[in-house]
Amino acid sequence: MRILPAKEFAIKREVEYGTVEQNQAVKNIIQTVMKDKDVALIKYTEQFDGVRCSDLKVTAQELDDAHEQVDAEFLTALRKASYNIRNFHEKQKRNSWMDLQEDGSLLGQVVRPLKRVGIYVPGGTAAYPSSVLMNAIPAQVAGVSEIVMVTPPSTNGQEGINPYILAAAKELGIHEVYRVGGAQSIAALAYGTESIRPVDKICGPGNIYVALAKREVYGVVDIDSIAGPTDITIMADEAADAGYVAADLLSQAEHDEMSSAILVTDSENLALQVQNEVEKQLKVLPRKDIASKSISQNSAILTVDHIKEGIEVVNQLAPEHLEVMIEEPMSILGQIENAGAIFLGRYSAEPVGDYFAGPNHILPTNGTARFSSPLNVDDFIKKSSVIYYSKDAILQNGEYIMELARQEGFEGHARSIQIRLEKEGRHDG
Amino acid sequence: MRILPAKEFAIKREVEYGTVEQNQAVKNIIQTVMKDKDVALIKYTEQFDGVRCSDLKVTAQELDDAHEQVDAEFLTALRKASYNIRNFHEKQKRNSWMDLQEDGSLLGQVVRPLKRVGIYVPGGTAAYPSSVLMNAIPAQVAGVSEIVMVTPPSTNGQEGINPYILAAAKELGIHEVYRVGGAQSIAALAYGTESIRPVDKICGPGNIYVALAKREVYGVVDIDSIAGPTDITIMADEAADAGYVAADLLSQAEHDEMSSAILVTDSENLALQVQNEVEKQLKVLPRKDIASKSISQNSAILTVDHIKEGIEVVNQLAPEHLEVMIEEPMSILGQIENAGAIFLGRYSAEPVGDYFAGPNHILPTNGTARFSSPLNVDDFIKKSSVIYYSKDAILQNGEYIMELARQEGFEGHARSIQIRLEKEGRHDG
Repeated sequence: MRILPAKEFAIKREVEYGTVEQNQAVKNIIQTVMKDKDVALIKYTEQFDGVRCSDLKVTAQELDDAHEQVDAEFLTALRKASYNIRNFHEKQKRNSWMDLQEDGSLLGQVVRPLKRVGIYVPGGTAAYPSSVLMNAIPAQVAGVSEIVMVTPPSTNGQEGINPYILAAAKELGIHEVYRVGGAQSIAALAYGTESIRPVDKICGPGNIYVALAKREVYGVVDIDSIAGPTDITIMADEAADAGYVAADLLSQAEHDEMSSAILVTDSENLALQVQNEVEKQLKVLPRKDIASKSISQNSAILTVDHIKEGIEVVNQLAPEHLEVMIEEPMSILGQIENAGAIFLGRYSAEPVGDYFAGPNHILPTNGTARFSSPLNVDDFIKKSSVIYYSKDAILQNGEYIMELARQEGFEGHARSIQIRLEKEGRHDG
Repeated sequence: MRILPAKEFAIKREVEYGTVEQNQAVKNIIQTVMKDKDVALIKYTEQFDGVRCSDLKVTAQELDDAHEQVDAEFLTALRKASYNIRNFHEKQKRNSWMDLQEDGSLLGQVVRPLKRVGIYVPGGTAAYPSSVLMNAIPAQVAGVSEIVMVTPPSTNGQEGINPYILAAAKELGIHEVYRVGGAQSIAALAYGTESIRPVDKICGPGNIYVALAKREVYGVVDIDSIAGPTDITIMADEAADAGYVAADLLSQAEHDEMSSAILVTDSENLALQVQNEVEKQLKVLPRKDIASKSISQNSAILTVDHIKEGIEVVNQLAPEHLEVMIEEPMSILGQIENAGAIFLGRYSAEPVGDYFAGPNHILPTNGTARFSSPLNVDDFIKKSSVIYYSKDAILQNGEYIMELARQEGFEGHARSIQIRLEKEGRHDG
C-alpha cells in the first residue's frame, strides 16, 4: 500500500453512465417490458438468468421453507440487528405540523409515507440479507404499507432464490417477492405488468444494467441513488492500533476491486506499521485477490502534517465511511463536514455499522456525502404544504399578492385575488 | 371547457427527456465548458443570448442600481413575502441528535447545511423574482453559506439583467450573481470555471436545455428536480363560488399552454356555472391565448357521484396544487394522499401560495407528488450517521456481527471485529 503526502493525492471521481451499448440495451428492455409485460419478464429471465420461470411470484410456502432452512445463529443475529436498525430509524420519524397565525390562518406541513416501494435485491453470490434490512426497515418505519422485493432466481437453473434473502424478507413481514432481476425488474416496478403493480419508488443496489434502468425510469418513479463503489477513510494518529486500522481498511477493500480504502495520518510511524499490517493480513484473507487490487489501485496512506490538515483532506474526500481513531475522537466531530457515516474511537469498526449498530449502511458513495445522506426514513415519506387562509388574511394581504403577481405579468393570478377582495370586501362594508 | 365523468378521463403523464439532438447539444456544451471554461461561457452567451459579456460577474454596483430602480410597492410586497417564507421554512429545520445506549455507546445523526448552492433563474420575459425567494430562502434557513445565482443577460443585447431579479437577490443578501444561462451555466456550476467555483447542488427551473443539463450533471452535484408543466386540481361542491373556482383555474392556465387545470365536483350545477365563468373570464384575460389553449387541451371539469369518489380521483391525479372548496374542507385533509400544496377553503386562492403565505411554490409536478415534496429546508441539508461504539458493546455484540458478515462471505469484515475481540477480551481477562 503506497504512502504519499496528502497534497500529492488526486481524488478520482467518476460518475458511471455506462456505454452507449449498455444504455441502448436498457432502453430496449424497458420498452419491451412496457409492451409485453410478464411475457417480457419471463423471456429476459430465461435469457439472462438461464431460468424459465413458471410463476414470477415467490409463494408463501417458499418463504416459509427458506426461513426454516437457515441456521438459528443467523436468525438470532438478524433479529438483534433488525431491532437496532428499527430503533435507530424510529428516531428519524417526523410529525405533521400545523401553525396557527394571528390572522386566523393555518399553515402547515403534512407528512405521509409513500404507499408502495420496490426493493431490488441482487442475487447469486452477491446476496446480502443485511441490505434487505437496511432498505426495508426505514420504509416500514416511515409507514410504507406495500413493500415489494424483486430478486433474480439464482440457484443453478432452478427458480429458487437465496434462502437467506427470503428468510430476511419473511422476518420483516415482506410477502410480496418476485423472482426477476436486472433492468427488466426495474421496468416492471416502474410501469407495472400483469403480475407486478407499479411502485412509487425503487431502492437497492444492482449491477450496471440495474443502475442505468433506475436512472432511466427516474421521474416516472423516485429512485434512491446510483451507488458507486464503496470507500472508507480512516483518520488515525500515533496512538491508533495499526492492526485495527489495517483490518478495517481491508474490510472495505474486500468488497470490490473498485473499492477505495484510505488512511489519513499525521504519524509516519503509524503509516509504516499499517503498511506492514495490511501486507500481513492481506496474505491470509479469503478474498485477497479482490482486496489486493483495491489496495494497490484505489487505496493509499496519506500523510499530513497535523490533524487539522487531515480534517481538510477528509472533507475533500467526502468519504462514504469515516473512522476516526485519534485521541478524543469526539473533539473533531464538529469539523467533519462531509461523510456518510462517522465511526468514532477504537471500538467502532466499520462492520459494526454495516450490520448491526442501527444506522443505515446504504450511504453516499463517490464523494456525494457533500450533498447526500444515508438512506433514512425521509426517503420514504413525502410532504404536502397546507394553507388555510382566513378572510382577514386575504383582505389584509391581497394587495401585496396582486402587486407581486402583476410585476411578473400574471394578471390571471392577480384576478383570482381581486375577485375575492371585491366580493368579500363588499360583504364586509 | 369540457365536462366529463371522472372515470372517462385519462391521466396524461409524460417525462420530458428531450430529443436526441437536444441531448447531444447539451452534452457538447457541457464538454466544451469543462474544457474551455470561461471562454466557452462567453462564446455560448454570445451565440445563444446575443450578448458579448465583458465580465461574467454582476457587480455590486449593478445590484445596487437595480435595487434603486424598482418601485417601492414591489419592495414592500417582496419583504412581506420574504418574511412569511422565512418564517414558514424556519419550522422545517431539524437538529442533530445523539442517543445514549445502555452499553455506553452513542448513536446519532448530524445535520449540516450544504456548503455551496447554485440557483438558476430564467431571464427575459420569464423573470420571476418570487422564484428567487422560493429557492434561496430555504437554502438560507438551512444554513447554506454560499448561494450563487446564474441568470442569462436579457436586455436587448446589453449585459443587463432584469432589475427585479437583481433587486430580489440584493434583498436576500445574495451578492454572487453571474450573467450566464442555459446548459452552459449548469455545466459551470457543476464543474467550475475560472470565474465560477463549482457548487454542491443546483436548483431552479429553466428551459429544456437547462433541464437536460441538470439531468446530465446529476451525480456530480445534486439537483432539485426536473420540473414539468404546472397544474391545479380544484375539488368543489355545490356551495363553492363558481367565480372563484374559474379565476383559480385560469390562474394556472395562464402559465403555459401545457398547464393543466382540473375541477373535480359532485355538482352538475357547479360544473355548468364554472364552465360559463371560465368562458367569461377568459375573454378579458391578457394572457388569453395561452390560457385558452391550456383550458381546451389539458384541462377538464370532472364530475363524480360523491366527494369520496372525488378524493380517489385527486389521489390518482397527485396534483401539484390542490384547492379544496367544499363545506368543512379540513374534514378531508386526512384522506388526501398525494398533493404538493393543499389550499383549504374559499379564501385560499392558489396565488396566495405562489407569492406570499410562506410555503414554497416549487412543488412536485407531473404526478410526482406521489413521491416528492415541495422544495424545503431538507433539500439543503445532508445528514451523517455517527457511531461511537463502546468496549462493552463490541464485546457483547461482536459475535453477532461476525455471524452476519461471514454468512455474506465477507471474512475481512468479520476479522476487523475478531481482532478487537481477541485483543480487548484478553485485556479484560
